[in-house]
Amino acid sequence: MEWCIIVDVNFVFGGILEMSYKLAIIGFGGMGNYHFDQIKERIPEIEVVGVFDVRQERLDYAKESGLKAYTSVDELIADKEVQIVLISTPNDFHAPLSIKCMRGGKNVVCEKPVTMNAPELEEVLKVSKETGKVFVVHQNRRWDKDYVIIKNILDNKLLGRAFYVENRVQGSKRSLEGWRGFKLNGGGMVYDWGIHLIDQTMWLIKSPVVDVQGHLARMFSTEVDDNFKAFLKFEDGTSALIEVSTNCFIPQARWHMMCEDGTAIVEDWECNGKMVRLSDDRDLGWEDQIVYTVAGPTRTMAPRPRETTEELSLPEVKSDWADYYKNVIAAIEGREELIVKPAESLRVMKVVDAIFESDKTGHSVACHI
Amino acid sequence: MEWCIIVDVNFVFGGILEMSYKLAIIGFGGMGNYHFDQIKERIPEIEVVGVFDVRQERLDYAKESGLKAYTSVDELIADKEVQIVLISTPNDFHAPLSIKCMRGGKNVVCEKPVTMNAPELEEVLKVSKETGKVFVVHQNRRWDKDYVIIKNILDNKLLGRAFYVENRVQGSKRSLEGWRGFKLNGGGMVYDWGIHLIDQTMWLIKSPVVDVQGHLARMFSTEVDDNFKAFLKFEDGTSALIEVSTNCFIPQARWHMMCEDGTAIVEDWECNGKMVRLSDDRDLGWEDQIVYTVAGPTRTMAPRPRETTEELSLPEVKSDWADYYKNVIAAIEGREELIVKPAESLRVMKVVDAIFESDKTGHSVACHI
Repeated sequence: MEWCIIVDVNFVFGGILEMSYKLAIIGFGGMGNYHFDQIKERIPEIEVVGVFDVRQERLDYAKESGLKAYTSVDELIADKEVQIVLISTPNDFHAPLSIKCMRGGKNVVCEKPVTMNAPELEEVLKVSKETGKVFVVHQNRRWDKDYVIIKNILDNKLLGRAFYVENRVQGSKRSLEGWRGFKLNGGGMVYDWGIHLIDQTMWLIKSPVVDVQGHLARMFSTEVDDNFKAFLKFEDGTSALIEVSTNCFIPQARWHMMCEDGTAIVEDWECNGKMVRLSDDRDLGWEDQIVYTVAGPTRTMAPRPRETTEELSLPEVKSDWADYYKNVIAAIEGREELIVKPAESLRVMKVVDAIFESDKTGHSVACHI
Repeated sequence: MEWCIIVDVNFVFGGILEMSYKLAIIGFGGMGNYHFDQIKERIPEIEVVGVFDVRQERLDYAKESGLKAYTSVDELIADKEVQIVLISTPNDFHAPLSIKCMRGGKNVVCEKPVTMNAPELEEVLKVSKETGKVFVVHQNRRWDKDYVIIKNILDNKLLGRAFYVENRVQGSKRSLEGWRGFKLNGGGMVYDWGIHLIDQTMWLIKSPVVDVQGHLARMFSTEVDDNFKAFLKFEDGTSALIEVSTNCFIPQARWHMMCEDGTAIVEDWECNGKMVRLSDDRDLGWEDQIVYTVAGPTRTMAPRPRETTEELSLPEVKSDWADYYKNVIAAIEGREELIVKPAESLRVMKVVDAIFESDKTGHSVACHI
């Protein structure tokens, strides 16, 4: 019996007491700070121990917060206690810093967009393989409730297979903060929100992307795309519209998904919305009758009798972003595969490359990603 | 003074008393009947005198309605009294019948889609030129109030230039009536509602189409597209999404248009909707602050202060479909150019061809239409 109790204690407290991972942050701006706060509050398995930033005021703030303030990346890497490095710098530094940290023996969590293009990411992944260090992108929006609802509807076949998906985030600020407005640093909406929506969409639809048409607009920025739409075709026949706007004053729904047996809408981040599903008694005969709408006669667009459909609430889902870091730890310990797999991040970067190429040539990019 | 009065009488009554045009209809189905009713009620300048249809019951109905019932197209053409022929047959008959009628000395009003493809239309237009007969497509949806509102907003620069336009008609009947389900007859949604929305969009944005990506779905039809989306890029940087669905149970707005200085939405055929326009005091500084939404932190998508925008009603517009036929008569009399110009109909057919080609190849079609 005593033996049993010892095992139990190890199981329950082991992770926290003995296995607390030490994490250091490179780039202590908005996102770096967000990770720090969130980890402190929600991930007992990880302790943030130090920070490197090029700005003295951020290092001062780190010290005030009880963290080590490294004066260089080398000093951070030399800190033997650190097992995980979070990289949350401007985007153009992600690849070189990730490589440097892995070669220095650290596991790496990297903010998105992971790199500036797919070939750069391939270099990074090569180093992950060589060194055996875990490398994972912070695609945290896979845990967003609106997305989890949409994924739940598809995965559980609540409305049958999807054929048109629209995945949008529309704002109206007409401005990009700091380096997010600079081309050199990987600014613009494709790299920013876009990469989240692309990752979500590709994790939703399990089929290769075969055509990418990007339409990037520069409404107020002189350097980068401040609004974009991309239209992805998947091999299985699904198509997805992905949109990120900063110049939209009447937002559309966060998600609109048309499936064979019904339609789902998620209006906003609060996840207002509904599903409308065909009843079993779904087939309508043609009455040889034209319906006269305000806009003239139509047969095809005449309304469907209400009793042939049913309106349903969106499914209840649970989602906890803390599971992201728990999975990173499990992967470091070899207990689980990464949820955000390197191969998936590479596919996302290839689609990003195709969007930029499509913008340059003005035409869609045939591919098999 | 007497002289003046005589001129006045001629001006007011001349068109009706002396110049009443005689029109015959080939294809007396739903649309043929619609033209008959509408002309009788709203176009005093035109009198429908006869009908040809392959179905005896439709000829019987024509006779009951006081019309001549021709037993062949040749008999119709031989009727010297007839100056205009309306062709409202299944789509595959449009081109040969149009050519036959013009060679027989008739002016032709042709239902949409005017032909099955652009080369066919070029043949038809050649005959129009040779014979000097007016040939015009019934793109009546240029007179739809929802469209006229959107066009008014752009033409009067109420929101500046457009960059993203979405033009949709979504129904849920999941069935196509009669020949509209057959490939041979030019069935499917691209040819049906699609061609209206393409025509509207191309008449809205005055720039060549440079890329066309079509995504055709066959959700219940085995022959033709029963749902489609097309994404058009225009040379001036505008992009347009055109969608016609018959398998959508939660409809989106009829129109959503993002412009440089604001956004417009027309919800439905009743033209509910609004505009939101930037105020003069539009520039927001960046406060170094992250906004915490339900879906996590974001700077870029933080809401804009209300006082930097103003909400406006959609413009009041007047539109009368009768102007279509009045313009046809004015064109026959050489007083006006056609509103629905043959060159515009040809551009629309070329975009339709590109949509079908894109569906076949799976990739977008680079063009300059």
